[in-house]
Amino acid sequence: MEGDIMRVSIIGGTGNQGKGLALRLGKAGYQILLGSRSMEKAIHAANEIKEKNPDINIEGLDNFQAADKGDVIILTIPFRSIDEIMEGLHRIVRGKVVVDTSVALIPGKPPTTERIPEGSVAQKIQELVGGETQVVSAFHTISAYLLQDLDKELSGDTLVAGDSPEAKEIVMALAEKIGLRPLDAGPLRVSSTLEDLTSLLIGMNIRFKKKSIGISFSNI
Amino acid sequence: MEGDIMRVSIIGGTGNQGKGLALRLGKAGYQILLGSRSMEKAIHAANEIKEKNPDINIEGLDNFQAADKGDVIILTIPFRSIDEIMEGLHRIVRGKVVVDTSVALIPGKPPTTERIPEGSVAQKIQELVGGETQVVSAFHTISAYLLQDLDKELSGDTLVAGDSPEAKEIVMALAEKIGLRPLDAGPLRVSSTLEDLTSLLIGMNIRFKKKSIGISFSNI
Repeated sequence: MEGDIMRVSIIGGTGNQGKGLALRLGKAGYQILLGSRSMEKAIHAANEIKEKNPDINIEGLDNFQAADKGDVIILTIPFRSIDEIMEGLHRIVRGKVVVDTSVALIPGKPPTTERIPEGSVAQKIQELVGGETQVVSAFHTISAYLLQDLDKELSGDTLVAGDSPEAKEIVMALAEKIGLRPLDAGPLRVSSTLEDLTSLLIGMNIRFKKKSIGISFSNI
Repeated sequence: MEGDIMRVSIIGGTGNQGKGLALRLGKAGYQILLGSRSMEKAIHAANEIKEKNPDINIEGLDNFQAADKGDVIILTIPFRSIDEIMEGLHRIVRGKVVVDTSVALIPGKPPTTERIPEGSVAQKIQELVGGETQVVSAFHTISAYLLQDLDKELSGDTLVAGDSPEAKEIVMALAEKIGLRPLDAGPLRVSSTLEDLTSLLIGMNIRFKKKSIGISFSNI
């Protein structure tokens, strides 16, 4: 049976977004490969999750090993590290589904996002990995704070953008498994709006003194 | 008592968004000055609304007269006409609250938005009207189709962006009066995200074969 369990790699997985997705996807039954540039940090984060949740199948690895072992590769990496990290990974992820959750955030009250020559961070990553690998943009409007709090049920919608319907289907199934309603937002080029929504929500969280403002769609 | 009723001008008010806002705000008790470049068209649209809704206080005028008579000036004008229309109006709206609902839409499936050198359409308009006039960005995610169908109650949220808290308060009160929950999204510079959301929603309406997909925020 183990061959049937999808292996999900989380690259740069020791941050809040990465740990939150690891927790939720692990609870949903996926095998988690938690990657970090520092293997020590990855092992530490994976052990922490495992101690509190012995039912979660999770392993800490360096980014390279994590990307190699996974079927689906989720990127929760800082925008500034994308070139460096993807330089090391673009061959190993070839033919896999790469899920980008990144935002080129310019801190501020409210934060804004940097203009990306490629159109969006997701499109930049698509150029870095090449056409044999399908990039899907998702999980931009889900609060990392909420992801990490298993006492709170996830709800609301997550927008999913990408140019491959098959790859989008895979990512939409992941989202559904953790309690979200995935909505197909269109081709990868709409990702700039998804990324901007992250800044907007961070700004609104600051403004309204909240931690987990989410978004949902009506009349759909 | 008449002096207490706020007069709302709708510039370029003969399109779907303009007529929809006229209808909803008129029903909420505001006096509506419906403007168009063609006074004939404005009178026609105003009469059409009045015939079906004799309780609505509405008058069709040319854009100039409409802007002159109103307390709050709502712009529902095509992006391409902004320079020309605002060239004629910027003096007459001085000191008033100007509400921008525009988007620099690039048609397509899905549509996208043009990059605006000023950052967003709302910021461009703020530059055109000058610092004595407060521009507020709002009503971007409310379906024109839904606005025009009085059988359907409005619901959901509308994001409001602007640099003047007082001007935002005025616009948020308008939104509340027609059944929406207005949310302060931050300063005017976040308007680019609000404008991009319009394209996103139009694209999703096409994709899901819907007409009135809306947006709302949770955990707020």
